[in-house]
Amino acid sequence: MTVTTKWKTDLEIAQETKLKRIQEVANDLDLLEEELEPYGHYKAKISLDVMQRLATKQDGNVILVTAINPTPAGEGKSTVTVGLGQALHQLGKKVIIAMREPSLGPTMGVKGGATGGGYSQVLPMDEINLHFTGDLHAITTATNALAAFIDNHIHHGNELRIDVRRIVWKRAVDLNDRALRHVVVGLGGSTQGVPREDGFDITVASEMMAVFCLAHDLQDLKKRLSCIVVAYNVDNKPVTVGDLGVEGALTLLLKDAFKPNLVQTVEHTPALVHGGPFANIAHGCNSVIATKMAQKLGDYVVTEAGFGADLGAEKFFNIKARLAGIQPAAVVIVATIRALKMHGGVSKQELQNENVTALQAGLSNLQKHIETIQAFGLPFVVAVNRFVTDTEKEIATLIQFCEQHHYPVALTEVWEKGGQGGIDLAEKVLDIIENGTNRFAPLYDVNEPIPDKIRKIARIVYGAKDVQFTSKAQKQIDQFTELGWDRLPICMAKTQYSLSDDPAKLGRPTDFTITVRELKPSIGAGFLVALTGDVMTMPGLPKHPAALNMDIDEHGNAVGLF
Amino acid sequence: MTVTTKWKTDLEIAQETKLKRIQEVANDLDLLEEELEPYGHYKAKISLDVMQRLATKQDGNVILVTAINPTPAGEGKSTVTVGLGQALHQLGKKVIIAMREPSLGPTMGVKGGATGGGYSQVLPMDEINLHFTGDLHAITTATNALAAFIDNHIHHGNELRIDVRRIVWKRAVDLNDRALRHVVVGLGGSTQGVPREDGFDITVASEMMAVFCLAHDLQDLKKRLSCIVVAYNVDNKPVTVGDLGVEGALTLLLKDAFKPNLVQTVEHTPALVHGGPFANIAHGCNSVIATKMAQKLGDYVVTEAGFGADLGAEKFFNIKARLAGIQPAAVVIVATIRALKMHGGVSKQELQNENVTALQAGLSNLQKHIETIQAFGLPFVVAVNRFVTDTEKEIATLIQFCEQHHYPVALTEVWEKGGQGGIDLAEKVLDIIENGTNRFAPLYDVNEPIPDKIRKIARIVYGAKDVQFTSKAQKQIDQFTELGWDRLPICMAKTQYSLSDDPAKLGRPTDFTITVRELKPSIGAGFLVALTGDVMTMPGLPKHPAALNMDIDEHGNAVGLF
Repeated sequence: MTVTTKWKTDLEIAQETKLKRIQEVANDLDLLEEELEPYGHYKAKISLDVMQRLATKQDGNVILVTAINPTPAGEGKSTVTVGLGQALHQLGKKVIIAMREPSLGPTMGVKGGATGGGYSQVLPMDEINLHFTGDLHAITTATNALAAFIDNHIHHGNELRIDVRRIVWKRAVDLNDRALRHVVVGLGGSTQGVPREDGFDITVASEMMAVFCLAHDLQDLKKRLSCIVVAYNVDNKPVTVGDLGVEGALTLLLKDAFKPNLVQTVEHTPALVHGGPFANIAHGCNSVIATKMAQKLGDYVVTEAGFGADLGAEKFFNIKARLAGIQPAAVVIVATIRALKMHGGVSKQELQNENVTALQAGLSNLQKHIETIQAFGLPFVVAVNRFVTDTEKEIATLIQFCEQHHYPVALTEVWEKGGQGGIDLAEKVLDIIENGTNRFAPLYDVNEPIPDKIRKIARIVYGAKDVQFTSKAQKQIDQFTELGWDRLPICMAKTQYSLSDDPAKLGRPTDFTITVRELKPSIGAGFLVALTGDVMTMPGLPKHPAALNMDIDEHGNAVGLF
Repeated sequence: MTVTTKWKTDLEIAQETKLKRIQEVANDLDLLEEELEPYGHYKAKISLDVMQRLATKQDGNVILVTAINPTPAGEGKSTVTVGLGQALHQLGKKVIIAMREPSLGPTMGVKGGATGGGYSQVLPMDEINLHFTGDLHAITTATNALAAFIDNHIHHGNELRIDVRRIVWKRAVDLNDRALRHVVVGLGGSTQGVPREDGFDITVASEMMAVFCLAHDLQDLKKRLSCIVVAYNVDNKPVTVGDLGVEGALTLLLKDAFKPNLVQTVEHTPALVHGGPFANIAHGCNSVIATKMAQKLGDYVVTEAGFGADLGAEKFFNIKARLAGIQPAAVVIVATIRALKMHGGVSKQELQNENVTALQAGLSNLQKHIETIQAFGLPFVVAVNRFVTDTEKEIATLIQFCEQHHYPVALTEVWEKGGQGGIDLAEKVLDIIENGTNRFAPLYDVNEPIPDKIRKIARIVYGAKDVQFTSKAQKQIDQFTELGWDRLPICMAKTQYSLSDDPAKLGRPTDFTITVRELKPSIGAGFLVALTGDVMTMPGLPKHPAALNMDIDEHGNAVGLF
């Protein structure tokens, strides 16, 4: 973010904001009193009954905010999402923001939250970034309860003949804890369980989170949970949650968390903050139930997807929108001068210096993502998230590029100015929804063979020449096809930093091949993960974690959180 | 519980009860609107500001509910606690119940909750027994965050020179998971941390829970957290949370959980349900802050302590009351005919049959606990928690025993009749508070040497002849004394089933010696644990865990939970 010493921190802005009682925010959405379950004065869960009451109401327009490939310079996608919501609110539209809820792990590790920034934040940001309404804790608990049920089943005779070498369900903590990546459990002798290799994922990387985020309702949640493959038996046949008979207990553990969370922005624009899966090993957007509820409660829904358009938007369209029957109305592609310069070859240290040549080189990355959105048949606006270091000449270069290609483009200053800094963007978004062409369709048919689906994504979205499959992946494709798992959408696990599978290749790499090393069935979530490299599902902490600065003041308020 | 087929289950009674909005319950306590943070419609957290506003108000009378040594027959201590609170409420007294909050682990494992039963329950029992307001999740998270900080410190150079063989801080899950008792973490090579032996406790057994429950306020919580000993360095010197510099972050993680939770009983009597440490490895009662807040909000506080009086009440007096400056007003000792018969030698299968001889033999257990309460200088009432299988002759025998010794005694039928079934008990409790003699004092001075304090507990409370210390324990006593840790109260970890350290010795064993095998410093909590046997700090699940019966119905309500 564009913080200089004289500027306020995100936490200071958050703590200075006088929030409305959440009941007032709910009243503006015409929620009934009994549909709101307050969690403190400024957070609430919304009853699923809303969906029945408003079943026949027309769905609101979904605006997806995505971005170019992320760089260490930061793009401010969440900030633009919140700012755009606030701008639409200022224009008198009935708008709701739908966002992911943050994981605690990164909060403890690296300074920087996931709730927007400056005057475009969802609040109370300290609570949202800490325990919030406990959703992630419920998901962690369900994940670990399932693991305990598996080990307990084996300990008490193993009727299902689970092969302890082939248990694929991992435990979870919502923390960055590298020491838990590879562990051995069940040590200590015959009364302490059966020894085996195991590991912990961070909660947001668990299939439990993906299942939670793709379920339409509680019954669908239970059905998906029962389909989760937890292990293979000694005959190499899949063993599911349904085989263990614990889908009811897991649904019970998740039923309250499953209700979307209502909060507000700095400008009191309503926001549903709910669910938050990884965008590589999973699909990277907030829960289906929150998006669909937002569509019932508002005429416009501003939502975002993780990382760049090659990962987040692709999955939003091919997985979430498809499974949930969501028809997106428009797309915003966020770019910054700083990040484009990095894609053009400038190092982080030299970002302050004007460099139009590098900017022009970096525009190729933006161009590719625009082509991707066009391939999905959707209208879009390029949002240039302005930083104080951007020069007039650089801005002019970017604007000129967009105008030459007839790409709608808007400058935004939502960090500094809140919704007022996003009015131009909001007006252009409204214009393309009204007047743009929308021929939205997913890129592939789920009934196509697995390799064909992966090739379509790699060629159309990444610009790859071809896809290679390792012999392991090829074998898995045959096995999954035999098991009837081939008719599912694909969830690509690829580096977020590059359009290719090599994080060092910035800009718009060409003439490259994507290698699929391995596949991972997420049958509960309802997709197959295709891994193109090592995917980190449990981050570590840095040498000086952000936690060292955290504290409470004499009134019990958070200090040193961002 | 006395459930027969025609009777309603606890969950049915709970779900049929029409609850008051939690704001109404709070109004009855004269809480200010801004002091209440609702969590849904029937749960709330209470701001710590209450303590300042009511600082000069006289403290309410604390009534401690304890019991004989528990048996598989059940005593219904929580049910009597709730029932007594309801009875005092019916008598027009300003009363608040203060109870522990349940752990999720046992809920998933064995049918039976920790929220009372029948018409003497705290509600909403399903939510209280599941995630409630997230306190246990916050404590689990703080416990695991601390473990991650330790391993991260070692991974990044280990400036504190922590000996990886001497890390005493364990991770936690709030589940019954035997496979996590003994694990090896940090496997996988040099980028994945440093391999070492580790283990997980159930959250309620972690020192984090004990610290949480003994802190007076947030600043005291932070101070106690910083004193937690997490490891020893290569010179065998203790390494604390303060040395790691993360006490601020841990306090931040716990700050919201630290606010007591307000709920209501079946009869709308207010109850604070907050904190719940084990009663062997820790002190086994709800948080100090909840008890002290209840004393400010009510004239009478009915609270309970874990297991029998030899563990729960002893620690309530010697640890909690001492550290918190609480002066108890009266004690209720719960006994049942069934449990007394088991102490007299009857097996669980034969409990239905009248057996006055066995009952008379079992009365020795009650007698010993009465003597213990007398040793603390407190007035008491014996509460006979009546079951349908009790015969008139058995009841008469027990009443006669009490009357012969001039022990106040009351029959209670609070499971079936709610507060109405506890009126006699309530009246007798009010009488002893008004007219009884109260010369309360802890049994020992904290400045006495460690072995002297342990001997006093063993002789006076258990009726032991003497205490033996293993050479390991003796060495630790010397070491702790050298470190200045000797001036702390003692937390005995002993079997709950017997007054002795042998769970098979029921009734009132005599002529026995207690063996202290090992000591464990809980410097953050502020006590030394003396272990007299193997203490289970991570339970396992049975072959057919209760989770197999759990589900949601078509309206999303809990099914099969108790």
